[in-house]
Amino acid sequence: MIQMAVMGLGTVGTGVARIVAENSAQIQRKLGDTLRLKTVLVRHFREGPWRNLMTDDFTQLETDPEIQVAVECIGGVDAAYEYTKRCLMAGKHVVTANKQLVAERGCELLKLAEEKGVHYLFEASVGGGIPILHPLTECMAANRIDEVYGILNGTTNYILTRMVRTGAFFTDALREAQARGYAEADPTADVKGIDAGRKICILADLAFGRQVNPAAVPMEGITRLSLRDVKIANRAGYRIKLLGRAVRLPGDDRTAYVAPHLIAETLPIASVEDVFNAVVVRGNATGEVMFYGRGAGELPTASACVADVMECLTARPKGLLWAEDASGFRDPLELETRWYFRIEGSLTDAAAAFGQVEVFSEDGETAFLTDAVTGLDAMARAAGLNVLASMRVLS
Amino acid sequence: MIQMAVMGLGTVGTGVARIVAENSAQIQRKLGDTLRLKTVLVRHFREGPWRNLMTDDFTQLETDPEIQVAVECIGGVDAAYEYTKRCLMAGKHVVTANKQLVAERGCELLKLAEEKGVHYLFEASVGGGIPILHPLTECMAANRIDEVYGILNGTTNYILTRMVRTGAFFTDALREAQARGYAEADPTADVKGIDAGRKICILADLAFGRQVNPAAVPMEGITRLSLRDVKIANRAGYRIKLLGRAVRLPGDDRTAYVAPHLIAETLPIASVEDVFNAVVVRGNATGEVMFYGRGAGELPTASACVADVMECLTARPKGLLWAEDASGFRDPLELETRWYFRIEGSLTDAAAAFGQVEVFSEDGETAFLTDAVTGLDAMARAAGLNVLASMRVLS
Repeated sequence: MIQMAVMGLGTVGTGVARIVAENSAQIQRKLGDTLRLKTVLVRHFREGPWRNLMTDDFTQLETDPEIQVAVECIGGVDAAYEYTKRCLMAGKHVVTANKQLVAERGCELLKLAEEKGVHYLFEASVGGGIPILHPLTECMAANRIDEVYGILNGTTNYILTRMVRTGAFFTDALREAQARGYAEADPTADVKGIDAGRKICILADLAFGRQVNPAAVPMEGITRLSLRDVKIANRAGYRIKLLGRAVRLPGDDRTAYVAPHLIAETLPIASVEDVFNAVVVRGNATGEVMFYGRGAGELPTASACVADVMECLTARPKGLLWAEDASGFRDPLELETRWYFRIEGSLTDAAAAFGQVEVFSEDGETAFLTDAVTGLDAMARAAGLNVLASMRVLS
Repeated sequence: MIQMAVMGLGTVGTGVARIVAENSAQIQRKLGDTLRLKTVLVRHFREGPWRNLMTDDFTQLETDPEIQVAVECIGGVDAAYEYTKRCLMAGKHVVTANKQLVAERGCELLKLAEEKGVHYLFEASVGGGIPILHPLTECMAANRIDEVYGILNGTTNYILTRMVRTGAFFTDALREAQARGYAEADPTADVKGIDAGRKICILADLAFGRQVNPAAVPMEGITRLSLRDVKIANRAGYRIKLLGRAVRLPGDDRTAYVAPHLIAETLPIASVEDVFNAVVVRGNATGEVMFYGRGAGELPTASACVADVMECLTARPKGLLWAEDASGFRDPLELETRWYFRIEGSLTDAAAAFGQVEVFSEDGETAFLTDAVTGLDAMARAAGLNVLASMRVLS
């Protein structure tokens, strides 16, 4: 019998406890042994099926030699960071879905895990139950990864889907998402692109092998997105999606950002709707592959954590690690792409600034796509225009 | 330095040799050691960059203690089976993209590999460069897998895409696919659904843990598909795709088949076009996840083989194995689904046989969808009708 602990009994922690109980047959078949939840670390005791496993004393868990793996479901950095570190120091594997902690301190924690000969695994931190990090780092290991991008946040994708389908304004769509439990009471981290930003940092760390600091990554959410642009794009055959994107640059430099993009409706990622997520990885041998599914939710996220627990117990630590060196991170405005602009002005104004453009609409305001230019160039050329909206086009 | 061999220098074998050379920096970074191609087994010597590594003597490879991994790129069963077995017996890991061999003899070869403490890996056998088998067996290990289905053959998907887009007849679309190198001179295994059938067998073996014999799996291709049905489906908002499908049934029974399906155009898998593949896995915790990308081609397939080579060298064999027992395989016509029928007859005839139906078109012939019924029931009810075409609808 193998024993484990859960730290924090919120949505993900509860899901982990449920899956260990409900899918015990599958788990035992794969593991060749039974997996038992022994201890649940909580701040406040409460009634429920795991009441008799609860403790509020971390040292009890830390010093219990029978516990081989701890699943950190606390969230945030402070306590989560300390307990993770102490579990690793104590020779226990740690598994988590905590994207903030991995994005900010993952490099240090992985190094500590390696020193101690244990695993620190976090498949659930990106894409919930969708397998992404293992396929990226293992199945695509023979590729040079050139780009990763995706719809990384279900809340904002749900809001965008409502805006397209029902013509709802952002604030109304957000209220609907909150009513359905898809958005938190405080939706800041989601709608401002911070949640997607942490995930694209983790993807960039693993894809390119060097630290990308969240603080260096420009994160634009959907709070300033206008329903007018959603409708214009839609009529022209494009969907607007919030993408996190990380790109390899010449000389092993790299960049990453989060921003809304126009996506041609014929691309598979344009059909990713509601709370679904999708991540596209471009390797120099494999080309583009896409991973798609529910990016959040109790059971999907928890099942990814339990799979990581099983990997801790069956696989050798594989030296999953990236270099601390964060240099060589460049401004994403150096990237070339087509841009969407909506200006208060005429087609003549647009053409004077950008030369030939593709017009989407003209009625006092003019909406158009530029040719591929760097973001810096686009901003410079648009400096004399009265810009009402601007966005990248995924190409 | 780690040394490997390639057996067979066709498309995949050449790709493996190229990737080991071209992506050596990535491979060395992950492996912590250099990977060198030492020996290439061929039937006939020929000029080229690997001329000096060639041998036509298998025993030379078999008895070379420096070779730790062999990539079998021979194809088919006869020689591929014998050499794989002898490599495993000699304590060498074996990696392959050979779906026929894995579908027919995989269970036996995995057992032998386990006895010898080596790996037998075949990620590239399904979906080419798209990571599917590892995510299914590892990342989703905490799930009970209830269903797997997908567009598993790029040649037929290319043909179907041409029929939809340009209104080409099957034979013309096939000729175009051959001209572009997407279809073999003898396209039988592709267009008759045999290639997709081997892949759905491997997916079913891994998903459900017990052998599914290819001979027991009904495989219907696209040779009998009429352009008329493609157009009717298209107008009604459906795409026709050739799907392989494997479903868990009550009491640990299971079924699998290959057949064309109608798919509502709003589903992401309906946008999978040209030579692209996609596999959907439904787990009881994760829900549906989809893996998408190029399902074939020299470099994608070869990069999946090289990733497997790297796994052989870094991970413990994980007891990847399914039971030989092939019992409990049931007729896929027992599954319930909506059916598409086109009959020579009126809506009255359709309603007399099926009760309420959803009419697609009526002009002498009548095309309609039934409610969800078992395939056996659908066939029985349609027995008195003059059926011109029938197909399942993906629900």
